[in-house]
Amino acid sequence: MGANPLNYNEPSSSIAKYGTNVKQLYLCSPNQFKFMSLYAQRGVSAQKEEVHAAIQNLDQGLYPNAFCKLYADFLGGQSDYINIMHADGAGTKSILAYIYWKETGDANVWKGIAQDAIAMNLDDLLCVGIYDQILFSSTIDRNKSVITGEVLSQVINGTQDFFNTLKTYGVNIEFLGGETADVGDVVRTIAVNGTMTARWPKSKLVTNDLIAPGQVIVGFSSHGKANYETEYNSGLGSNGLTSARHDVLSKEYATKYPETFESTLSDSVIYIGKNKVSDQMDIPGFGNIAVGKLLLSPTRTYAPLVKAILTEHFDAVKGMIHCSGGGQTKCMKYLPGDMRIVKDNFMPVPPIFTLIQANSGANAREMYQVFNMGHRLEIFTTPDQAENLISIAASLGIESQVIGRVEACQNKELVLKGDFGQEVFTY
Amino acid sequence: MGANPLNYNEPSSSIAKYGTNVKQLYLCSPNQFKFMSLYAQRGVSAQKEEVHAAIQNLDQGLYPNAFCKLYADFLGGQSDYINIMHADGAGTKSILAYIYWKETGDANVWKGIAQDAIAMNLDDLLCVGIYDQILFSSTIDRNKSVITGEVLSQVINGTQDFFNTLKTYGVNIEFLGGETADVGDVVRTIAVNGTMTARWPKSKLVTNDLIAPGQVIVGFSSHGKANYETEYNSGLGSNGLTSARHDVLSKEYATKYPETFESTLSDSVIYIGKNKVSDQMDIPGFGNIAVGKLLLSPTRTYAPLVKAILTEHFDAVKGMIHCSGGGQTKCMKYLPGDMRIVKDNFMPVPPIFTLIQANSGANAREMYQVFNMGHRLEIFTTPDQAENLISIAASLGIESQVIGRVEACQNKELVLKGDFGQEVFTY
Repeated sequence: MGANPLNYNEPSSSIAKYGTNVKQLYLCSPNQFKFMSLYAQRGVSAQKEEVHAAIQNLDQGLYPNAFCKLYADFLGGQSDYINIMHADGAGTKSILAYIYWKETGDANVWKGIAQDAIAMNLDDLLCVGIYDQILFSSTIDRNKSVITGEVLSQVINGTQDFFNTLKTYGVNIEFLGGETADVGDVVRTIAVNGTMTARWPKSKLVTNDLIAPGQVIVGFSSHGKANYETEYNSGLGSNGLTSARHDVLSKEYATKYPETFESTLSDSVIYIGKNKVSDQMDIPGFGNIAVGKLLLSPTRTYAPLVKAILTEHFDAVKGMIHCSGGGQTKCMKYLPGDMRIVKDNFMPVPPIFTLIQANSGANAREMYQVFNMGHRLEIFTTPDQAENLISIAASLGIESQVIGRVEACQNKELVLKGDFGQEVFTY
Repeated sequence: MGANPLNYNEPSSSIAKYGTNVKQLYLCSPNQFKFMSLYAQRGVSAQKEEVHAAIQNLDQGLYPNAFCKLYADFLGGQSDYINIMHADGAGTKSILAYIYWKETGDANVWKGIAQDAIAMNLDDLLCVGIYDQILFSSTIDRNKSVITGEVLSQVINGTQDFFNTLKTYGVNIEFLGGETADVGDVVRTIAVNGTMTARWPKSKLVTNDLIAPGQVIVGFSSHGKANYETEYNSGLGSNGLTSARHDVLSKEYATKYPETFESTLSDSVIYIGKNKVSDQMDIPGFGNIAVGKLLLSPTRTYAPLVKAILTEHFDAVKGMIHCSGGGQTKCMKYLPGDMRIVKDNFMPVPPIFTLIQANSGANAREMYQVFNMGHRLEIFTTPDQAENLISIAASLGIESQVIGRVEACQNKELVLKGDFGQEVFTY
């Protein structure tokens, strides 16, 4: 097969969002091949060149470095406003919810899937500075032979419930309906997607154009329990879930739930982990929590935090990154020029990632390219402003710290450094 | 099993759009059971009470009789404007494209799927009066092991191509990107969905509140070749496609393409028709066309027509219905009060529906509840204005005629009358 026969682009992500600006493609090194090969065999290593080729003729938006594509104000006709539409979904996390629901009868987990589909959209929007007056519409494709009306009810009402919670933090999202289609010939279980629309003043946008050497990066924890959360959040989010599911869960689920994977997959990549969803894991400070619950932990939104930061310290925010698909390498797509990003002061790795790594045997380089590993939001700021951001996070129950910095460099370079040693990525 | 054991609601539709106002539920008669049973066994008879139960707590919008849910102008803050987000997709029509593509190698058919996802949204928006300054975002979930990058390219670029065509008719839709997710564990082949957003002045809305006895109904043909179309349109649209596919296509596709249906379906409902996609059918005036092409014929949009009508004769339009899921019974959901709808002057049934009926053995009552049977758009108007609408349609190459009328009645009643006899529906 050779060293890197498949020439992976962004092997860490199964999602190619053509509403998100993508300027750089990634190549993986030969030693990544084994791990990435699992990805490819599972059909989730988005060879994004396919999508890039498909979208090359489309309008690329007004701000090339912004985290999302932003367009002229077609809806309002004002030159100082932009429009955005943004789509994302819970991806294969819905399958985990399905297995957990079948095993436990607990339909409540489907509310978390609603939250995943929302937060994966909302937190992308946050990164261009948008946190209010947002419209949302959902699209649910289900296989009616396995997904009941109760599940639909949990997903749809979970959507409104989550918006109600956010409203109390001044984050106003209007639920403008959506579609539920019974398409069992297309969908094995259920696909939950959502789309957001917003208008926003250009003067309040974060475009990443101000990211520059000398700045520091504040990372905001993806796990723990924020003040606006009701239980422990594992920090996993909604990326790398195909991997996490197959690598962590045991083979028994392959037999019990053949509707949860592509039927032509090799048995060697299907549910090859050691755990059942009911296995308990000790989370320091929170006691024992089922592995299934940890994997399903609804994606934390940083909306209340970002709203507070942008309201109080807009000028301090030079750039903002949602560490979703691509994990800790994600930031490299949105830099306004050549520079080196050094992240050498990570917060401790949350237990869920330790569990996944123990099951999959992936090395640190691989893990940091797939998962957020501890912080799903990072803000680029000046050294003197970091403490302001950190104290706002603390007031919301979110751990944060300066996790890295921006240095001058002749090319684009990323250095990740921690207990695992040092990993360098050049672009 | 009893006479009506499953208590079907809207047996004709597999899609429950909770952004579309739905006020009435349908009950089917005992003699419909055999046909509807095929629906149920295929998992497409949306028992919409499930969705209705799920959405009962959601905001139902500003205009209860309007074809789509319309909301306050959150994006612009003007009291005389509304906002709408609307979601829909190509549904199981993508499976037909898949089979045709695999059989013929012709990837071009995927452009039609893009058009289906757009027209199913756009033509719903037309019915509330919106035909311009629309934003669009798409969501594509694919199984990468069977759907290639070329397919993505056809769908995405087909989207932009279609918008370019519409722009020449003054219908401006901006393509604001979207998402492509590789989720082979969720999706067997490909799901193509889209979402539209618009702001619109209240003074230019069609709310259906003005529908009243004494008016006539103009039906606009779903088949033929409109001036803005490049080839014959069969008129099928994107409704009833699960039925049409399984009822028309022959068993050989079950063996060849097991990825095109839910694996636990009874063999007695899978591909039980007589035709191959390559079989030729004579279409008067257009020569022989392959059955596969007829089934895949991209959903006609009426946007250029509706724009012209609303621009020139806004006050003549008292109500507008997109005969999508529910076929010729669809109008009954949007009446502003008790009245009788009589449709007794249908245009000739297009050949595609004759083919489907010949394969399925469905009776007229059943066919008219599932398929548009000849016109997918109807406008309620005063008798003196009908000719104005008809002549605009003629100028765009679309056949139309007065197909029915509104009569005073103590309850809601629908009478369909034609060569097939008379069918009465009471609500």
